[in-house]
Amino acid sequence: MKITIITTGGTIEKTYNEQDGSLKNYSSILTKILGSLRLPDLEIQQRNIIFKDSLDMTDEDRDLVLRLTRLEMKNGDAVIILHGTDTLENTGELLYHEIKNPPCPIIFTGAMRPYEFRDSDAVQNVTESLIAARLVEPGIYVVMHNRILKFPGVFKDRTRRTFDTN
Amino acid sequence: MKITIITTGGTIEKTYNEQDGSLKNYSSILTKILGSLRLPDLEIQQRNIIFKDSLDMTDEDRDLVLRLTRLEMKNGDAVIILHGTDTLENTGELLYHEIKNPPCPIIFTGAMRPYEFRDSDAVQNVTESLIAARLVEPGIYVVMHNRILKFPGVFKDRTRRTFDTN
Amino acid sequence: MKITIITTGGTIEKTYNEQDGSLKNYSSILTKILGSLRLPDLEIQQRNIIFKDSLDMTDEDRDLVLRLTRLEMKNGDAVIILHGTDTLENTGELLYHEIKNPPCPIIFTGAMRPYEFRDSDAVQNVTESLIAARLVEPGIYVVMHNRILKFPGVFKDRTRRTFDTN
Amino acid sequence: MKITIITTGGTIEKTYNEQDGSLKNYSSILTKILGSLRLPDLEIQQRNIIFKDSLDMTDEDRDLVLRLTRLEMKNGDAVIILHGTDTLENTGELLYHEIKNPPCPIIFTGAMRPYEFRDSDAVQNVTESLIAARLVEPGIYVVMHNRILKFPGVFKDRTRRTFDTN
Repeated sequence: MKITIITTGGTIEKTYNEQDGSLKNYSSILTKILGSLRLPDLEIQQRNIIFKDSLDMTDEDRDLVLRLTRLEMKNGDAVIILHGTDTLENTGELLYHEIKNPPCPIIFTGAMRPYEFRDSDAVQNVTESLIAARLVEPGIYVVMHNRILKFPGVFKDRTRRTFDTN
Repeated sequence: MKITIITTGGTIEKTYNEQDGSLKNYSSILTKILGSLRLPDLEIQQRNIIFKDSLDMTDEDRDLVLRLTRLEMKNGDAVIILHGTDTLENTGELLYHEIKNPPCPIIFTGAMRPYEFRDSDAVQNVTESLIAARLVEPGIYVVMHNRILKFPGVFKDRTRRTFDTN
Repeated sequence: MKITIITTGGTIEKTYNEQDGSLKNYSSILTKILGSLRLPDLEIQQRNIIFKDSLDMTDEDRDLVLRLTRLEMKNGDAVIILHGTDTLENTGELLYHEIKNPPCPIIFTGAMRPYEFRDSDAVQNVTESLIAARLVEPGIYVVMHNRILKFPGVFKDRTRRTFDTN
Repeated sequence: MKITIITTGGTIEKTYNEQDGSLKNYSSILTKILGSLRLPDLEIQQRNIIFKDSLDMTDEDRDLVLRLTRLEMKNGDAVIILHGTDTLENTGELLYHEIKNPPCPIIFTGAMRPYEFRDSDAVQNVTESLIAARLVEPGIYVVMHNRILKFPGVFKDRTRRTFDTN
């Protein structure tokens, strides 16, 4: 099983700067998460392409995600995209409309609380995405908080701090 | 989604006794694991029935697991069984032969390192089982280390410290 | 041994708000830290009085810390003050000048990284302060990063992200 | 400040073997503990000499600890000894009787629960010992659970799972 994980920043990847006390997207934390998991039968390729709060993502950024996903979905058995939750649905709908018949699962995930926090949901969500990637049929999904939600129509429920579908 | 989790002890549930320095099955750690996960759309029922190293499980113990699984598989959408890895394949084969057409997924999981350890694989394996329970077709499985293995023929690979199939 | 711990907010106590992604002083984390330590022979009294970034502390806030310290230093064997690092030296110098002969140790501590982060120095610094409180002579101190620094003349070394003395 | 830390095994250093499920003294965990602390002004030298449950320590082992302590107490500002709690008092009394006027603090510490466990007291006890090493007068001590206990007369209170003095 061969998977590509594309990281784009977002809450899940925010890290703390001790000089100024800010919490920002400085680098990817994906290697740390993967290092804490046991994945004996999985070949993972990382593509760390964007380091931003998803509220700051531009159309060019989303287009970059689209183009890289198109490329990587032909090279492996699944594509996972770490994405900020605030505009995840925008990028998800874009991919849903632009990639008509994906050859494999394309799964968005992220976190409500950055990985660096003790009580983060980041490891849970990545763990879930990695196993869902083996089980779901081709399509565009959000996998988070023990749920598998398929585009179109996935949205962030800000009150419950999780995702849902119409 | 409604799931029953049956705990039987095993490595995953071993806890440390500070009085005598032993590492044994004194109680279930499942509540702690579930408390660390975000599961907004999942109703879980716990059945803590056995507190043993799986090497000490008797035929009566395995029969108890079988009978309880038969009962619970009719009450929900999946049954997950926390089990010691050393004799997991015995209980798994028993269920495979006795339960001909399970109405839902029956998933065994466990850990190579007890939950109480910092580097345990317990949370990963429970997280994976909980999401696989939503995705796999009815059958008897081991879910662990990002793999979904279906009975019959699942065995513990002691050298690689994980499970595999013939 | 009887100690009063006064909390004033600061980096050590910043917590994450999942609704808006902010990192602020919403509540005290002291109870969590103390709950993770073994302190069989210590009676601790908490006074959670201020919930602010120390850059936002006013003269009134510092005066409140001074007055409460004056009161509590007579009621126990030591006073520990959790304080933001950015203006810790200001409050420390104030106490140094206003409290001429403290009857017991008055120890400031804090953290360069909030307690809620995995790699925080918060637990280390509180642990150190609690044991230094048993050992140092009366005076006004900063205890952090395995160092005991006595006022006057303690300052934050922003480059090395720790405290030092002239 | 220059400290030597001698490790001898004991509960604090027990690690889990996934092949056979045993919890034993295979190697030292001291480097991991020190790596989790911020110690900008401390030079530490490690001497990992014994890897045993302290119930298995022989007279030769205790003599080795004595001879190495004699050597290292002349080379630095303090000696810390990680030791199993079950026979810590024996080694402590030996050093107390053999080293009449130590030139610096000699501090024993350990843990009731191995470092590898989530709820271990190992980091607390090492943190406390490292700061007490800067503050106590020359002598032989146990530092653990926010207490500083001086030999002779220190003993393990098995019921309360901590140390005390007569």
